[in-house]
Amino acid sequence: MAKLDFFYEFASTYSYPAAMRIDDLALDYDVEVNWRPFLLGPVFKAQGWETSPFNIYPEKGRYMIRDLERICEADGLPPFRMPKTFPAYSILPARVALCFTGELRAAFSRAVYDAEFAGGADISDTKVIGKILRMLGEDAAKLFEKVNTQPVKDLLRNETEAARKHGIFGAPAFVTADGELFWGNDRLEMAMEWAAKNGV
Amino acid sequence: MAKLDFFYEFASTYSYPAAMRIDDLALDYDVEVNWRPFLLGPVFKAQGWETSPFNIYPEKGRYMIRDLERICEADGLPPFRMPKTFPAYSILPARVALCFTGELRAAFSRAVYDAEFAGGADISDTKVIGKILRMLGEDAAKLFEKVNTQPVKDLLRNETEAARKHGIFGAPAFVTADGELFWGNDRLEMAMEWAAKNGV
Repeated sequence: MAKLDFFYEFASTYSYPAAMRIDDLALDYDVEVNWRPFLLGPVFKAQGWETSPFNIYPEKGRYMIRDLERICEADGLPPFRMPKTFPAYSILPARVALCFTGELRAAFSRAVYDAEFAGGADISDTKVIGKILRMLGEDAAKLFEKVNTQPVKDLLRNETEAARKHGIFGAPAFVTADGELFWGNDRLEMAMEWAAKNGV
Repeated sequence: MAKLDFFYEFASTYSYPAAMRIDDLALDYDVEVNWRPFLLGPVFKAQGWETSPFNIYPEKGRYMIRDLERICEADGLPPFRMPKTFPAYSILPARVALCFTGELRAAFSRAVYDAEFAGGADISDTKVIGKILRMLGEDAAKLFEKVNTQPVKDLLRNETEAARKHGIFGAPAFVTADGELFWGNDRLEMAMEWAAKNGV
């Protein structure tokens, strides 16, 4: 089955609509999606940015919100909401996601995005993430211990490094088995098509 | 008939595929397109950039070329070529375009983009622009005089100012009659749909 790596950042607004539709789309294209959370912070820092470009360039930021309102409406998602702090501090959900595999990682990730961009919640808050974990039937207390262990920290660091090695400079990004890189929710269909045609 | 303002910059890579397909698409949506060339330079300067973000961020620049190669192939355009100087110095073609109206402005603009991104030509070169003008049956010598007159200079300055007033921060950009802004070749269909639904 053809494979597609889905690199996403929990603080990234455009990763949200991609996360909400990628698995349905993958069924249509018969592609297996590998959900790979990473941190954009170090990538942005390497580009000389201390925050999101949507904060650095206010006109771009204002446009982004309007654009996402339209995208959410077109995709049948709840009205788009910006969380109070943007970009969110996303280390906690990223590490939790890496404690899971397969369908559970995807379900957790979608729930985080829903809380953040439909609910306006602060995803660095253990109460917010704890509630999601309980909804999924997971042991929040145990996971909050696990995310502070070195193996989990290293895993996230390695995934962020892997993203950089693929030439990723923003999120979401999609990488096919033959190394082709696609950037942005807008390129999801193109990435799926490429994966289906050129995949193993 | 519903109207859509098409703001484009001759040095802008993503304006190229938009220019090549916008008039065909407009027929499908029954929308009237107003071609409005402007200069991104002053807009970028206001954002603190002295050149294209694709030069400032090399990974983004490399990705952009690959992305446009794929887009050109998907759209049935000739293989994408970067001109030797990027971004091109686009004042000459922008001013010439503003000497024309309607279908002639669109035809001239498409020819400039084709010379630049399919032919790799330098669009600041009067020989390159002169050849295009002769192909269109226009008097190049007369136009090269006209572009240095104050009314034409003012026209381009005003169009660039109009773009900024619409909140435009990149090209291509599309603005509907009710003031809705869409950015990027990726948003052309969405802009057309909006214009057709909400246009006068």
